[in-house]
Amino acid sequence: MSENKSESLKNHFLEKILNPKSICVFGANNNLMTTMGSMQLRNIIAGGGFDGNIYPVHPRLEKVQGIQAYKTIFDIPIIPDLAFIILPTKIVPQVMEECGQKGVKHLIITSGGFREIGADGIELSKQIDEIAKKYNIRFIGPNCLGIYNGWYGYPDKQDNYFNTFWIYKPHKRGNISLISQSGTVAAQTAFYTNELGIKIGKSISVGNERNIDLVDVLHYFKNDPQTEVIGLYIEEIKRGKDFIRLAKSITPKKPIVAIYAGGTKAAARSIMSHTGSISSDHRIYEAAFKETGIISTNLIMDFLFYLRTLSQAQSYNFFPKGNRVGIITDSGGPGAMMTKSSELYGLEVPEFSQELQAIIKIDIPKTASSVNPIDITFHNNFTNVFIKFPKLLMKSNEVDAVIVFGVYDFDDLFDIIEKSGMKLDDMMKKRDELYENIISKSVKRFMRKYSKPLFFAGPFPYRYRWMQKFVEDDIPIFSMWDDITKCLSILYRYAEYRKNSNPKSET
Amino acid sequence: MSENKSESLKNHFLEKILNPKSICVFGANNNLMTTMGSMQLRNIIAGGGFDGNIYPVHPRLEKVQGIQAYKTIFDIPIIPDLAFIILPTKIVPQVMEECGQKGVKHLIITSGGFREIGADGIELSKQIDEIAKKYNIRFIGPNCLGIYNGWYGYPDKQDNYFNTFWIYKPHKRGNISLISQSGTVAAQTAFYTNELGIKIGKSISVGNERNIDLVDVLHYFKNDPQTEVIGLYIEEIKRGKDFIRLAKSITPKKPIVAIYAGGTKAAARSIMSHTGSISSDHRIYEAAFKETGIISTNLIMDFLFYLRTLSQAQSYNFFPKGNRVGIITDSGGPGAMMTKSSELYGLEVPEFSQELQAIIKIDIPKTASSVNPIDITFHNNFTNVFIKFPKLLMKSNEVDAVIVFGVYDFDDLFDIIEKSGMKLDDMMKKRDELYENIISKSVKRFMRKYSKPLFFAGPFPYRYRWMQKFVEDDIPIFSMWDDITKCLSILYRYAEYRKNSNPKSET
Repeated sequence: MSENKSESLKNHFLEKILNPKSICVFGANNNLMTTMGSMQLRNIIAGGGFDGNIYPVHPRLEKVQGIQAYKTIFDIPIIPDLAFIILPTKIVPQVMEECGQKGVKHLIITSGGFREIGADGIELSKQIDEIAKKYNIRFIGPNCLGIYNGWYGYPDKQDNYFNTFWIYKPHKRGNISLISQSGTVAAQTAFYTNELGIKIGKSISVGNERNIDLVDVLHYFKNDPQTEVIGLYIEEIKRGKDFIRLAKSITPKKPIVAIYAGGTKAAARSIMSHTGSISSDHRIYEAAFKETGIISTNLIMDFLFYLRTLSQAQSYNFFPKGNRVGIITDSGGPGAMMTKSSELYGLEVPEFSQELQAIIKIDIPKTASSVNPIDITFHNNFTNVFIKFPKLLMKSNEVDAVIVFGVYDFDDLFDIIEKSGMKLDDMMKKRDELYENIISKSVKRFMRKYSKPLFFAGPFPYRYRWMQKFVEDDIPIFSMWDDITKCLSILYRYAEYRKNSNPKSET
Repeated sequence: MSENKSESLKNHFLEKILNPKSICVFGANNNLMTTMGSMQLRNIIAGGGFDGNIYPVHPRLEKVQGIQAYKTIFDIPIIPDLAFIILPTKIVPQVMEECGQKGVKHLIITSGGFREIGADGIELSKQIDEIAKKYNIRFIGPNCLGIYNGWYGYPDKQDNYFNTFWIYKPHKRGNISLISQSGTVAAQTAFYTNELGIKIGKSISVGNERNIDLVDVLHYFKNDPQTEVIGLYIEEIKRGKDFIRLAKSITPKKPIVAIYAGGTKAAARSIMSHTGSISSDHRIYEAAFKETGIISTNLIMDFLFYLRTLSQAQSYNFFPKGNRVGIITDSGGPGAMMTKSSELYGLEVPEFSQELQAIIKIDIPKTASSVNPIDITFHNNFTNVFIKFPKLLMKSNEVDAVIVFGVYDFDDLFDIIEKSGMKLDDMMKKRDELYENIISKSVKRFMRKYSKPLFFAGPFPYRYRWMQKFVEDDIPIFSMWDDITKCLSILYRYAEYRKNSNPKSET
């Protein structure tokens, strides 16, 4: 989306938390192995994404991880935009009080040991509520992992990010924003998001939600032009009615995918000791998700794949107008299985018209099938599979979405062939140019032009070069043939919902 | 299993097809790009797994891919154990006739274009039936990809294999055998089987099953000591009653996992053009699977994961005696989600006894949970997570299976920490030795001793080194936290079935 941030968003309390020009950090020292705070400061420093000012506070050290430290917050020469507290639970109220006195209005409290541990923790929670109220402080946490903002300082800053999560490479930024009551779901998904091309722009680990809750963040994301798809990990929703009203106003424009982790007996117990939430029967949540048009799943990988599919749908504007799928494959087995799963997921794999089949038949061997799936058998011809047949189906009025199963790690394959003393034909030699100059461009053009998804797949794990080629190019690519039809069905159902929702009814 | 092959197995027609000392190949030349036959000969040669004699037959070439060629089969100085035919459909009967005259008794016919293309193909099929009958020939195919035998010539030969499938590295051998009516499912799963440590020992692409069918191969695998788990990809079962009787006699000792790709309208059409099979309502197949104790799925990745789990269960003999799962994690979110999914899949995550909790509490921080899941929070201590807690739960009588979520790619992490100028503690420095000398050994010992699965997981894709460390060591490892509970539930249900089946009733 191209709109700029509205004035109301600029003054939103989350704006300062996501884009602080200066932060102070409580709880970091020089030993990464034993202190969570040290690790989190390291995360912020690592990779150089954050170019704001950092003020570590430490009673004894002169420098913390190479940065000048201050004995107390009162010694810091400015009022930091954000304070980051990663200290033993019992000291948190006192430090928070000092932050208030200093004039800091925004905090992230990572420390655990609040309501999730019982009576003592609840008492402490009340204390921090009081202090926040007294000084007009808004804070994330406690018992959270902080935030990731891939859009830190944008557009003034082009390639910066703010990341308290993880010392590794953070998520690649994009139009997906996460709100998570689990730090792991917010942070440790980064290995997969990077490998699969799932572009998370912002991720907030909201923890116990003592002050800023999921509904607050959801409200911010509703108006955030950098957010076009929202992912939620939920253990409890505190403001049910507000959530439902708000979600209803968001989903017609920005799809929401949610995991609800509660709803079973042991899960409730597990959640109680995690964030201290009280979970409800999962049917209640399922009903709320249905009412609000939220797409839900119990699986983390489905969550990530659905987010990627909807993110790409927003980027390319490919919301299919119907449920008819055209399949091009060189493998009968995957073809049959994708056909079956399409039907089980509520999609249709219609027989092509005689006219269309006649055109297809020109380019496939006699033993191949032109019906749908098009099974070209072993006679895998690069041009047919990647250009000619996809174009034919995308342009036809017979399908609303197209699957191509036939992506191989060609480099490796042709390497072996050449080492065997065999010759490659010209087309195969020019496969990289062909991809860049023709396939990539035409695939993107078709998806935009016809509003039809064009999904690719092959039998290789995502790490292989040709899989990564598609990933990096932001073209929908799937490993094996399970996820591809599931994602298409989710997309189709969301497209139907979007079409039927009246955008004028938004609040 | 340690038994040797029985005499009856030694004389089985599949024995010569899986372990031929000599083969002749029809349809290969020196151009890999245009001829399927050339590619398949290359597959056999590539990697050097096959050390038997190869006799290419070619009307004009002196040498095919560096090997002396013969004008006709009659020019070959011996009678080959197996003939491999990858020729245009119409010539197949004539070549087969010549094979018969020569005295060849076993064939693989890769060529397509038989019943799957309609009337002409059916006529040709009848011709090859006649020839087979006349000369007492048994053959695999037509319209198949051939075979993979990771146990080629074993135990006389130790590291050989026979592979017509794929020019890439073939499956790592083990106790899983596949029978597939899809060449892709038989062959192109090798990238994943190698990455995930799924050890396929034998794989047969049976194609149209004109002569040797799935039931024949299943019968062979029943008595094959190298086969302990069987995977089936099914589009049609020709001999339903035989199949059910045979499967019933196998599953109490050797679990069977099956995909049935038919059963929906378009899937039936897709299958008809693939292998020419007539598919039935999938409820009929589901009923047959239930009756025979076959584990079924519509997803290829579940198929592979179930096979791996059951393969490891056979190797370590970990068939859980109940459905109670103990979970050790450093992440509340995955803990809650695994707990929920366990319950949804019919497993139990029981609260630990006060006695057990008291022992656990000694080693975890106050903010952590000892209930089940054990959530050790950020205070991830290598010894606790990988040795102390697993040992405690494996030995306890409170659970029947244990999950440990907390495998990270430690090398990368500690590299970054050291590059940041921080120091590692001794335990972290010795992590590799610790893994090899203590973790690996005790995990394997516990699984065998208590007959309880001990499954590990972490948020990294399988390609990362520490994930591969577990894979190569054959210790159950899962990426993320979706598949782990699903596999446990499948294993539990199979263990119940195995316990309740009377092995003496076998035919």
